[in-house]
Amino acid sequence: PGRAMWAAGAARGAALAAAAAVTAVALAVAAWRRARPVREVLFFPSRPCCIEALLAEAAEPGAPARPCPCPLPSGDTALSRLVRRLLSARRSLDLCLFSFSCPQLARAVQLLHRRGVRVRLVTDAQYMGLHGSQIGRLRRAGIQVRHDQHSGYMHHKFAIVDRRMLITGSLNWTTQAIQSNRENVLVVEDAEYVKAFQDEFERIWEEYNPANYRFF
Amino acid sequence: PGRAMWAAGAARGAALAAAAAVTAVALAVAAWRRARPVREVLFFPSRPCCIEALLAEAAEPGAPARPCPCPLPSGDTALSRLVRRLLSARRSLDLCLFSFSCPQLARAVQLLHRRGVRVRLVTDAQYMGLHGSQIGRLRRAGIQVRHDQHSGYMHHKFAIVDRRMLITGSLNWTTQAIQSNRENVLVVEDAEYVKAFQDEFERIWEEYNPANYRFF
Repeated sequence: PGRAMWAAGAARGAALAAAAAVTAVALAVAAWRRARPVREVLFFPSRPCCIEALLAEAAEPGAPARPCPCPLPSGDTALSRLVRRLLSARRSLDLCLFSFSCPQLARAVQLLHRRGVRVRLVTDAQYMGLHGSQIGRLRRAGIQVRHDQHSGYMHHKFAIVDRRMLITGSLNWTTQAIQSNRENVLVVEDAEYVKAFQDEFERIWEEYNPANYRFF
Repeated sequence: PGRAMWAAGAARGAALAAAAAVTAVALAVAAWRRARPVREVLFFPSRPCCIEALLAEAAEPGAPARPCPCPLPSGDTALSRLVRRLLSARRSLDLCLFSFSCPQLARAVQLLHRRGVRVRLVTDAQYMGLHGSQIGRLRRAGIQVRHDQHSGYMHHKFAIVDRRMLITGSLNWTTQAIQSNRENVLVVEDAEYVKAFQDEFERIWEEYNPANYRFF
């Protein structure tokens, strides 16, 4: 019996040690995941998808999900990943976009604005007035928009989330580009790259200050 | 005299140790520079500049520089930096470009092709025939070109040098974009990002294989 008791104790001890080890590894992995900067590449075209669930969750975190009646799948696509990254904004969203006509992305931006995120948007003067442009809608919602006054294009297509995460690539924010074109978007959480783009954004934001507009 | 000799010997020893330390630091810095991956952001518009000296040096390394008679400055600009990165190719250059009409960049690509670098170029069918396009010239020079057959655009604007360095951004390779637009180009020497784009390039290269072209 002494020997059996010893064996049982040893087994219990080994099980406890194993459980502790598993917990330690799990905690380390979780910490590493949290600390690891985001590095992602999204390629388009994206399969069309429904982002209602993403928007609803961002508008009212934890609210019971209401299924969307639309026929689109709500799976994991390049578009849904892009929307997720944008909706992660808590303090600021700086947008520098040549053309912006995708209603789904406009709804995500509007939602962030309503949630109190400071949204600033720079765009191209020649493209902001085109059919389908979402710029007017965003302005009416109270979002600050500035545009160039040049003959050259304001051709950037980047977003900076919370001055921390850079989202940049070839993709204009149009449904045509998202669903039909070969496009790329990099998601980069790297202080050096983010700083370069944040500085460019601030330069453009000041240069396009309406106080400097000239009326020909 | 014994004391003076000792002092002189100690001074000599200290000087030698200091020299060794300086050399060690210099070697370490040089090694770190070599090993440090390229991370660069280029913003456009670029001041117009002459790239003849860069092309001449790449065509005939070490040859005496002949001054160019053109009136443009040959300083450090976003364009000259982009050209330098391209001309660093030794084995391969994979290009995936929506539109390519800048003659300066076409000359750089042609030079690499002549130097034995394996150049592959993917472009957009609707844009390759536009006025000023350099695609015909590059094809006639013997460079392999493939294009899409879709109504959507092949809208990427990236280059991969030696399967090692990714050059990507909003910039189309047109003189208008380089000299007049607000544009960005990232230069990234990072295996993870490069692999994602290299894989995308190989997918497109195969998909656009002329053996798969359909004639409507």
